[in-house]
Amino acid sequence: MKSTVFSLLPTLALSAAITSSMAVANHDDVPTPVGVSAEFGQILADRAAPVSVPTPQTLQQWQAFQKKFDAPGIALGKALAEKHQVSYEQQQIAGVDTFVVTPKQIAKEHQQRLFVHLHGGAFVFGGQESALREAVWIANGLGVKVVSIDYRKPPLHAHPAALEDSVAVWKALLEAHDPQSMALFGTSAGGNLTLATTLKLQQHDLPLPAALFTGTPATDLAQTTDSWYTLQGLDPLGQRDGLVQGAMDLYAGETPLSDPLLSPVNANIEQFPPTLLISGTRDLLLSDTVRMHRVLRAADVDAQLHIYDGQSHADYLHGAMTPFPESDDAIKELNAFFNLHLK
Amino acid sequence: MKSTVFSLLPTLALSAAITSSMAVANHDDVPTPVGVSAEFGQILADRAAPVSVPTPQTLQQWQAFQKKFDAPGIALGKALAEKHQVSYEQQQIAGVDTFVVTPKQIAKEHQQRLFVHLHGGAFVFGGQESALREAVWIANGLGVKVVSIDYRKPPLHAHPAALEDSVAVWKALLEAHDPQSMALFGTSAGGNLTLATTLKLQQHDLPLPAALFTGTPATDLAQTTDSWYTLQGLDPLGQRDGLVQGAMDLYAGETPLSDPLLSPVNANIEQFPPTLLISGTRDLLLSDTVRMHRVLRAADVDAQLHIYDGQSHADYLHGAMTPFPESDDAIKELNAFFNLHLK
Repeated sequence: MKSTVFSLLPTLALSAAITSSMAVANHDDVPTPVGVSAEFGQILADRAAPVSVPTPQTLQQWQAFQKKFDAPGIALGKALAEKHQVSYEQQQIAGVDTFVVTPKQIAKEHQQRLFVHLHGGAFVFGGQESALREAVWIANGLGVKVVSIDYRKPPLHAHPAALEDSVAVWKALLEAHDPQSMALFGTSAGGNLTLATTLKLQQHDLPLPAALFTGTPATDLAQTTDSWYTLQGLDPLGQRDGLVQGAMDLYAGETPLSDPLLSPVNANIEQFPPTLLISGTRDLLLSDTVRMHRVLRAADVDAQLHIYDGQSHADYLHGAMTPFPESDDAIKELNAFFNLHLK
Repeated sequence: MKSTVFSLLPTLALSAAITSSMAVANHDDVPTPVGVSAEFGQILADRAAPVSVPTPQTLQQWQAFQKKFDAPGIALGKALAEKHQVSYEQQQIAGVDTFVVTPKQIAKEHQQRLFVHLHGGAFVFGGQESALREAVWIANGLGVKVVSIDYRKPPLHAHPAALEDSVAVWKALLEAHDPQSMALFGTSAGGNLTLATTLKLQQHDLPLPAALFTGTPATDLAQTTDSWYTLQGLDPLGQRDGLVQGAMDLYAGETPLSDPLLSPVNANIEQFPPTLLISGTRDLLLSDTVRMHRVLRAADVDAQLHIYDGQSHADYLHGAMTPFPESDDAIKELNAFFNLHLK
């Protein structure tokens, strides 16, 4: 029996099971990739096709949908924390809701370090304990303390509320932490916010994180990049038209989607912290990811790109539930990268 | 009027215009990628669909086809050398045919360096002055002297003839050159041979190149990796069944296709020179490339991956004819990488 992705990673694979129309036709006969682990091959085999869900139109519809959509993610976040014996505490930092996430054991090299997390979920979803899914993956995988920011989000709060929150928390954390020992990270919308927060910190002349991890980031909210078309039907994320673009529009509010703080691929970058980027060959955000990599490299940023064969959007995060070789490998890359760049 | 890719890069885009059956149907409506330069967008727009050509069956058919297929590539190689005022000289080194390729001006940092080139063309094509196309791109782009090896190839010479030739040339060059000042590089089949030659040098306990560039390498000749399926119809390379697999089989001869010297993705790598890999999001060998990147990274090799949005197999080499921003960017990455790792 096929499980739905919804039951695995409800908001990270954000429109899995909820995409309004889906063209899988042309990829029906694509076999399991030869180069993936048996474990990940099983994840692919168990994957159910997305089902259609209409895009909410009113504030009330968005709120109702958000609540319904996030419920299983919240349950999963809590369950994962328990499973990995990761403790978490809700704290207000600079008036912003956060989770302070502490693994069972902090690795020796990470004792003095702090990782700041911006969760994914198309800017609208993935809040509350949903955010623990990725935060636990990193906290447990690396053995590091994480502060996960439950930033304000649509439908009530459009841009720049989320960035105001992330910058406020960052500023507050600077009082007790050396930025050279701090990293900033996130996946999908969280990858966007990781980049945008860093741009905003630069605007404010604030100390930057020592290194970033931006996983399959949404970097162009204004234009539909190529892999959204070329890989459609291969990624449970579904498609961009409908819910995904609707959520992005909601997040942008009155600000043009091409604004660099919404679409970091348009940023005029001169310098930037070392940045690790992850995507997959079946990831609808592959183009968003590799374009951002090129923007960073054009500015000679130490930007490291890792692409996993056969993986769709944020598939590496399945490792939070059941470790598989490629997920372990991503953790290994992240650990090596942060050990290289963090004090 | 649409030009054929054949007229641009006959053997590097090796089965362009010669693939036996081509499924473009499902990608007919994919727009030009939003993130590419106007110049590269024009290359995409001018691209003609591949036409069918049957796979040769006999020795005589292969020889006749090879001759016919390589003729425009040879003419183009010569024309590009003239255009860029790159001089070249046919030399036998250790009994192997080579071209010693010298740019108009050797860059200051590359004065003492030598780049060794293994050309592409599905192991069967791309020999003689065809090889100059990539050799000139590198020699002129970086301002460096290149020795391009016109290794023996099918249908007369199967594996390991090509590797015997590359190793013999390498050994001979070592007599007058410091391997720490030498790089090895190639695209497609040449990327495979770059990896396989390095493995062979390790087997012989010979000094290795200081760094490698392997562009969109064929790394799994035994299994059809995922992007051959997922991106079919988007890459003028066409498809794997037919001519491409036929050429690989011919190259392998009696050796199993899974042998690491044929399929480097199966190599048991412990150490390896720093390696730069290039592919594109529409490259049928994207999976071959990223899988090899992971194999290298699993051994903690300094392996740098660069993926260009919207590019198909070896598209960066179009820069040898008409420079475009992404091709210049690849040259910049290569130069920075080799300056970092070569003495």
